[in-house]
Amino acid sequence: MTLADARSPLVAIPIGDPCGIGPEIAAKVALDKAVVGHAEILLIGDRRIVRDALDLIGSDRRIHDVVSDTVKLAPPAGAQINVLHVPGIGPGEFSRGVLSPSAGAASLDCIRVATELALAREIQAFVTAPVNKEALQKGGMRFSADADFMADLCGTPRIAAMVVSEKLRVFQVTSHVSLRKAIDLITVDRIVETVNLANRFFLDYHGTEPKLAVAALNPHAGEGGTMGTEEIDVVIPAVETARAAGINVDGPIPADVIFWKARQGDYDAVISLYHDQANIPIKLLDPYGLVVVTVGLPVIRTSVAHGTAFDIAWKGVADHAALRGAVLAAADLARARQKVMVASAK
Amino acid sequence: MTLADARSPLVAIPIGDPCGIGPEIAAKVALDKAVVGHAEILLIGDRRIVRDALDLIGSDRRIHDVVSDTVKLAPPAGAQINVLHVPGIGPGEFSRGVLSPSAGAASLDCIRVATELALAREIQAFVTAPVNKEALQKGGMRFSADADFMADLCGTPRIAAMVVSEKLRVFQVTSHVSLRKAIDLITVDRIVETVNLANRFFLDYHGTEPKLAVAALNPHAGEGGTMGTEEIDVVIPAVETARAAGINVDGPIPADVIFWKARQGDYDAVISLYHDQANIPIKLLDPYGLVVVTVGLPVIRTSVAHGTAFDIAWKGVADHAALRGAVLAAADLARARQKVMVASAK
Repeated sequence: MTLADARSPLVAIPIGDPCGIGPEIAAKVALDKAVVGHAEILLIGDRRIVRDALDLIGSDRRIHDVVSDTVKLAPPAGAQINVLHVPGIGPGEFSRGVLSPSAGAASLDCIRVATELALAREIQAFVTAPVNKEALQKGGMRFSADADFMADLCGTPRIAAMVVSEKLRVFQVTSHVSLRKAIDLITVDRIVETVNLANRFFLDYHGTEPKLAVAALNPHAGEGGTMGTEEIDVVIPAVETARAAGINVDGPIPADVIFWKARQGDYDAVISLYHDQANIPIKLLDPYGLVVVTVGLPVIRTSVAHGTAFDIAWKGVADHAALRGAVLAAADLARARQKVMVASAK
Repeated sequence: MTLADARSPLVAIPIGDPCGIGPEIAAKVALDKAVVGHAEILLIGDRRIVRDALDLIGSDRRIHDVVSDTVKLAPPAGAQINVLHVPGIGPGEFSRGVLSPSAGAASLDCIRVATELALAREIQAFVTAPVNKEALQKGGMRFSADADFMADLCGTPRIAAMVVSEKLRVFQVTSHVSLRKAIDLITVDRIVETVNLANRFFLDYHGTEPKLAVAALNPHAGEGGTMGTEEIDVVIPAVETARAAGINVDGPIPADVIFWKARQGDYDAVISLYHDQANIPIKLLDPYGLVVVTVGLPVIRTSVAHGTAFDIAWKGVADHAALRGAVLAAADLARARQKVMVASAK
């Protein structure tokens, strides 16, 4: 059998920047009993780093070397840690907790392998352990974020981030830019694209049309233009365009109203216009249970909201709960997608 | 005795714009048993409008006319509704649910009387029922908001809005302006002034120095200037200035972190930079329990976050819970202030 035959979805974890907490929390997730029965785990990274991480957390679990020619994988062995060895840098070739271009290059390589395996359907999903954007760029990445690197590998023109907790699902029209720049980036096209991606996500993973709502930019949704004109100039035309295309979407809804309405079930998801508009409500309700889903890719990819935490790297104290949540969410998405595909094939 | 001798704090309610739900919810609060023992209520408005509102909600309670020459008030009668008659417009002189400059002028007059009574210490606090800003301005108000009108009457140079729920207290550096304009208005001076007002509020009403924190403007607090420079240029200098003046204040803290930290007790209050940054978390945790306190006035004034709701005016269906909450909060502040003053006089 190949790993793709595994009963639980096979979820790969590129182990992230070796200078940070990625390898440690990836190893902890691979050992976590709460994952058993929900997902088969495949770590993607340098075997020597994984061994070091296992030693750090006091595990003598053996590494099972998974062989890949990017299509065929060997079967996993039950009590072992499945590792797809991607030669990068080994222990001693970097300083723990210090930004390193070589470490960035190595972590980018692991993400590339994971994306290719997902495209080849050898894995059902992947979850990236934390990387450092500056290290990735100094290590050769020509994109502003790792998600854009994946989108390029997949030949995907447009992606969006969805932040999810148990209580809310929020798609982001803009994300990691200054608030001033975010306002400039909010265009009719960009909102419509995000609404389309959100709608497509529900069709692909739930098999049903969602009820969506777009948040306003200004207080009280601009109150008829007296507190900002972006609603009139941009958000309303975008919502009208999406509705004309048959999408069930409301808006603009004042940002201090839309999230509690979504929480009480009025909407399946919220389209937010800027980073904090999405993340304030999500993190307030669920500070540690947040998962990020990259929507629009032809593969399933989730990640965590936290970073590499260089300050506590390789100290054995990093909490893997967020990464575990992202793995379980990825496995759930894989099962949901399978169900929709089986249903639509009937 | 004068009303100021009442055992419970005497809280006045200017009944708001007669075209809206103000008179109805003010009458409901005056009749609400949950207020008894917490506050004595004095409605300020045209007696004919109050009578109409009582009739609307099916109350045959008699109106007790409170006489005032702006200093002396007659004693209230237990089972009656205390009304300070401010001649404005009567029933039939306006259309319910339709914006009216005369109604704006009448509601502004009631706010003026309430402010003057509070300055004269004839009442301990007042709570404004909803007014319509456009009606106020067409009715003669030369200010951008009713709070500024009150500040002018009080000769107060600088005020700030504090939004409060059971779970969070948030001061606003900017409020009812477009997001673009808010960013332009966020200056070192304005942040420092708001921090000072927040600090003074806790000294005046709690008798202790608070632990404060200022929210960041950009994602991840600008991440060292890579996602916006306002933290470096404005927020950090403001926090340093306030700290140099002896105030216990942290910041800038990323906006998606600061509110859950405040909620878990790390801070007594948050200084937010723009309207939705304050109101998203407050309303998400407590959609209906929100009270607005105008901080910096020499008198106690609270209000509700909702508006005149012209669409449901005079239908008998308006919910007075928010106004009741604002009245109870005002009475609590009056008691807290009294306690601090007694303690500091010893």
